[in-house]
Amino acid sequence: MSIVVTNISRDARQYAGEFAELGVATTHEAQGRTGLLDCRLRPIYRPASIAGTAVTCEVAPGDNWMIHVAAEQCQEGDILVVTPTSQCHDGYFGDLLATSLRARGVLGLVIDAGVRDIATLTEMQFPVWSAAVCAQGTVKETIANVNTSVICAGQRIDPGDLIVADDDGVVVVRKADAATVLERAKERVINEEKKRARFEAGEPGLDVYGMRERLAEKGLRYVDSESDSE
Amino acid sequence: MSIVVTNISRDARQYAGEFAELGVATTHEAQGRTGLLDCRLRPIYRPASIAGTAVTCEVAPGDNWMIHVAAEQCQEGDILVVTPTSQCHDGYFGDLLATSLRARGVLGLVIDAGVRDIATLTEMQFPVWSAAVCAQGTVKETIANVNTSVICAGQRIDPGDLIVADDDGVVVVRKADAATVLERAKERVINEEKKRARFEAGEPGLDVYGMRERLAEKGLRYVDSESDSE
Amino acid sequence: MSIVVTNISRDARQYAGEFAELGVATTHEAQGRTGLLDCRLRPIYRPASIAGTAVTCEVAPGDNWMIHVAAEQCQEGDILVVTPTSQCHDGYFGDLLATSLRARGVLGLVIDAGVRDIATLTEMQFPVWSAAVCAQGTVKETIANVNTSVICAGQRIDPGDLIVADDDGVVVVRKADAATVLERAKERVINEEKKRARFEAGEPGLDVYGMRERLAEKGLRYVDSESDSE
Amino acid sequence: MSIVVTNISRDARQYAGEFAELGVATTHEAQGRTGLLDCRLRPIYRPASIAGTAVTCEVAPGDNWMIHVAAEQCQEGDILVVTPTSQCHDGYFGDLLATSLRARGVLGLVIDAGVRDIATLTEMQFPVWSAAVCAQGTVKETIANVNTSVICAGQRIDPGDLIVADDDGVVVVRKADAATVLERAKERVINEEKKRARFEAGEPGLDVYGMRERLAEKGLRYVDSESDSE
Amino acid sequence: MSIVVTNISRDARQYAGEFAELGVATTHEAQGRTGLLDCRLRPIYRPASIAGTAVTCEVAPGDNWMIHVAAEQCQEGDILVVTPTSQCHDGYFGDLLATSLRARGVLGLVIDAGVRDIATLTEMQFPVWSAAVCAQGTVKETIANVNTSVICAGQRIDPGDLIVADDDGVVVVRKADAATVLERAKERVINEEKKRARFEAGEPGLDVYGMRERLAEKGLRYVDSESDSE
Amino acid sequence: MSIVVTNISRDARQYAGEFAELGVATTHEAQGRTGLLDCRLRPIYRPASIAGTAVTCEVAPGDNWMIHVAAEQCQEGDILVVTPTSQCHDGYFGDLLATSLRARGVLGLVIDAGVRDIATLTEMQFPVWSAAVCAQGTVKETIANVNTSVICAGQRIDPGDLIVADDDGVVVVRKADAATVLERAKERVINEEKKRARFEAGEPGLDVYGMRERLAEKGLRYVDSESDSE
Repeated sequence: MSIVVTNISRDARQYAGEFAELGVATTHEAQGRTGLLDCRLRPIYRPASIAGTAVTCEVAPGDNWMIHVAAEQCQEGDILVVTPTSQCHDGYFGDLLATSLRARGVLGLVIDAGVRDIATLTEMQFPVWSAAVCAQGTVKETIANVNTSVICAGQRIDPGDLIVADDDGVVVVRKADAATVLERAKERVINEEKKRARFEAGEPGLDVYGMRERLAEKGLRYVDSESDSE
Repeated sequence: MSIVVTNISRDARQYAGEFAELGVATTHEAQGRTGLLDCRLRPIYRPASIAGTAVTCEVAPGDNWMIHVAAEQCQEGDILVVTPTSQCHDGYFGDLLATSLRARGVLGLVIDAGVRDIATLTEMQFPVWSAAVCAQGTVKETIANVNTSVICAGQRIDPGDLIVADDDGVVVVRKADAATVLERAKERVINEEKKRARFEAGEPGLDVYGMRERLAEKGLRYVDSESDSE
Repeated sequence: MSIVVTNISRDARQYAGEFAELGVATTHEAQGRTGLLDCRLRPIYRPASIAGTAVTCEVAPGDNWMIHVAAEQCQEGDILVVTPTSQCHDGYFGDLLATSLRARGVLGLVIDAGVRDIATLTEMQFPVWSAAVCAQGTVKETIANVNTSVICAGQRIDPGDLIVADDDGVVVVRKADAATVLERAKERVINEEKKRARFEAGEPGLDVYGMRERLAEKGLRYVDSESDSE
Repeated sequence: MSIVVTNISRDARQYAGEFAELGVATTHEAQGRTGLLDCRLRPIYRPASIAGTAVTCEVAPGDNWMIHVAAEQCQEGDILVVTPTSQCHDGYFGDLLATSLRARGVLGLVIDAGVRDIATLTEMQFPVWSAAVCAQGTVKETIANVNTSVICAGQRIDPGDLIVADDDGVVVVRKADAATVLERAKERVINEEKKRARFEAGEPGLDVYGMRERLAEKGLRYVDSESDSE
Repeated sequence: MSIVVTNISRDARQYAGEFAELGVATTHEAQGRTGLLDCRLRPIYRPASIAGTAVTCEVAPGDNWMIHVAAEQCQEGDILVVTPTSQCHDGYFGDLLATSLRARGVLGLVIDAGVRDIATLTEMQFPVWSAAVCAQGTVKETIANVNTSVICAGQRIDPGDLIVADDDGVVVVRKADAATVLERAKERVINEEKKRARFEAGEPGLDVYGMRERLAEKGLRYVDSESDSE
Repeated sequence: MSIVVTNISRDARQYAGEFAELGVATTHEAQGRTGLLDCRLRPIYRPASIAGTAVTCEVAPGDNWMIHVAAEQCQEGDILVVTPTSQCHDGYFGDLLATSLRARGVLGLVIDAGVRDIATLTEMQFPVWSAAVCAQGTVKETIANVNTSVICAGQRIDPGDLIVADDDGVVVVRKADAATVLERAKERVINEEKKRARFEAGEPGLDVYGMRERLAEKGLRYVDSESDSE
């Protein structure tokens, strides 16, 4: 009863380039601190920074068959998102699959499991965010779904959603929200740049953010160490 | 009932430069194998090596408000030490806070929680030792103490204590012990250099350390593999 | 009742150079996906890639005495394999021991415990695969065995077995199997190179591996997203 | 921008009693091995077995304010499902909240975080599945959503979905699928009872499941230990 | 340079009985949510509930020698608190040591490491809070301190401090604060009992705690599911 | 190339009854603190205590096919030992398999993976030591070996070896060593009983074990708290 959904919408791809520059932390803040994948997903090399449309792929534990099926569904500008149907650290993905994905224009891989051949992947500069690095091989026996809605590292990802990944981790932006989130993220950057200038000039954050009054209301007290009996 | 202690003693700062060169492992040995923070604290980039006086800061889980308060208490040569009041991996600290701390002369951050913007922190060469890298944002709702005695990653740290951090991890030296520990650490280095020369010349460690007799007393037996029936 | 076995067989060393080039993932596949050490063992720096004959060493928790004993048993082309008799993350090994091992021609260290002085080890380019980086020092009180059969990170390792270690992890090849495994590994590489060319040319993996028929038999169904009601 | 959705559909409640008897493993199998929450969620006492309609609740790390809000939305036969917006082990829930929920007819709690007062909860026989037991208290500062779609321990849960929880863990059944899954689960039980009788009679599973031919096809070989050279 | 401090003050013992009844969660709240040991410490059987004066003991990894030394320092009403100088899960403590401690009137053990013989300890009803259950034996080679200030599971514990332990975990009360904390804890219980009656009567927590106004100020909005477009 | 070895030797079974009474900790000590499986293996209910001859079984991740094959090889007095070829927490084993094993006289299961149906297994009093409890189902696609030498939870286990399992964990005794280890274990028990009597009488362990002199030699110093300046 497993299916491969073809011809998914990639309308959000138009925003990918700008999201890649904005990065994960800013994107995550701009959409109200939602959408962040669990921080067990780490890049296999740094720095790395991409954004693209999700092609989603379920795999059975210790079985990478469906990655081969999913690869064929990938297009220029996609990011392959792989999630095991139960927790597994095996090395599902290596340099041959990376070669195949790159030939199709895929930007990188996000996988809540293990990968291998990371020396070659690093040389190729094919970026991967994974839960583990492990040479343990996999079999090809069990089918599962491609391009259905999945939960990957604690977040729901639908095919065509935007994935933004950098050294801080991975965040998903719903395809329908991409334009709005992008707008807010840009505003946030402008706002941050103004603050950065004030911080660089040595102005205390308590003034930059206007926090002193509220801290006093909460009861924060300043005590000179000479008189401190704590 | 939260307090910020101002004007803490920084008398131990005079030793910081030498400790930074000695490094964590040597310092830790020189004070009798004490003071090492849990090895879950890792540098976000390598190599990195600093030593400075601790400004301590408690934070509530998922709430970085007090880091902004603590920043104002920091001076040239300090290291900010942040500990959550209960375990949390959120990204409490990013490039704006680093900009602010650097403007004040702070050498780096030690935090038993998460950080983000690590690509920028790496470019800035602002070193951080953290328990996690995570883009998850925080709120500003709950106050806590600054510059009181804290437990960070399993060690008690008082404000003004010396923090030594490098690729091996983080160690704390009580401010009152800094001079004595420094003396012992230097002796240790001299002693190690003599041994290194003997090791480089190929002399067995069993002779360099004079261990053969005691091993024999303990009952260690040498068996030729030809006659080994194990 | 602890023993040190001397004069172990190193017949498998002749294959080490070729295995170092083949790497961990290929070697592991070539011997039927067996022999991989748990992926908690990670290199302290990357890239790193070695292969050599195992000298095995047990250590008590928090006690590195036997590493000094084992060092004397090491020869040109060996890899020292250290396993604690119960789980421990202390820093058993640092730059002095590395200096001693290098002077004897040892290629690197595999240890299911912690190491320290990793900045120096990195400068020396002395590769280590460890379960932790930790500056915590050890004592020298308890003896154990050298060059007996050990379990390290979930795999049995006999003295003289071939150890292959790279950025993907560590795999052991039984000394008696080395020639056969090497043969199969080479065939695998040739086979992979042919596939790589096809992948680079953009051919789908489903065709390269001839998977379409078997997927259909298993019941995989393709659904156009327009008509997908999932 | 946080919301509380009121008057959620509880149509699936009619199936709850039967699911509670079927249990988690059978339900999970009957819906194609999907819907199982991560096994880090464990019952605080055993045996415990419930099924009911989900009221969903997000909480900020270290902040249980919204559980008080969600409690008011609960009705007879509900199970409260709480998920932190970032990982946290604090004790969000204790005997007072349990008293409040019980007074409203709530059957139990599923929480991807910590709980406390477990001695009293056990005496009350108020069942809880949690990721931790921890007395660490929480604050009431940050609002979040109640009765929106959440991800809890790796599974998407919509308000009104059926939650089945027992000593094996927790599984979610989509409200729309409840009738179908129930039918399949009952068939499975009947089928299993037939098999159980054959197993009790000592019949080998290879015959009960008719596996011998397929094992032979895969190449499984039987070797007498006398002649085994492995 | 290890020491055993004798004749420690046990002035706080007078409060122990009342704290045992109040339990960990209430005590922890009454002292401002401080003093809780990491929740990796769990009771080996349940229910269990004790309070007593701390005798502190450091142990080397894999070495329980100092527990024998500390046992002699224990008196009626004490709780032995054991912390390894680096992380270790070995079984430091079994039924013989429990027999010895019980003969001296010791109430139980708190250990940030492993214990064994838990079937016998359970029969004896000698309660233990530990980080692990592990039969791995230990040696007797390395000395350390008894009755000095220690960090155990993330909290500082001084000899003579009050330890309160129950099914929720372990909390420390500074000996100097015991009387004050006890007073506050009792008030808290009275306050909670009043609330419990209201909860039992079915009154919503939002009214019991008077939270509605502040939630509205924060912007919480109620939406009927019929009109919910989320 | 997978094999099932039939007619394994069960000569060590004659000692099983006595080992079950001696238990894991005593057995482990009697064989020189070796053979203990990693303490991640815990009993699903307590108390539980068995000893029997190992039938070993490898399984692929997420695939319990070979347990069905191994079941047929089991006889009266055996303990089934299951180890996945790579780490997996799925629920490989439930009440049907337990019914089948019990019908064959199998005493229990040791598995470095997950199990399910634990409420029923507890009612049946079929003891299991596992790394996880998880309802996640498995497939039947991949074959592996039965009754070959395996590594399970860090220890090598050969078919026919004695497995001793109780509330403290699991230990393996080589079949060839069973008689000798049994002898030593009995002596140990007699010795411990003498000590227990002295401990119950209140004699300090330092005298029972004659430790005072050696502690003094190591430099342990007793300091009265009145004069302690630490």
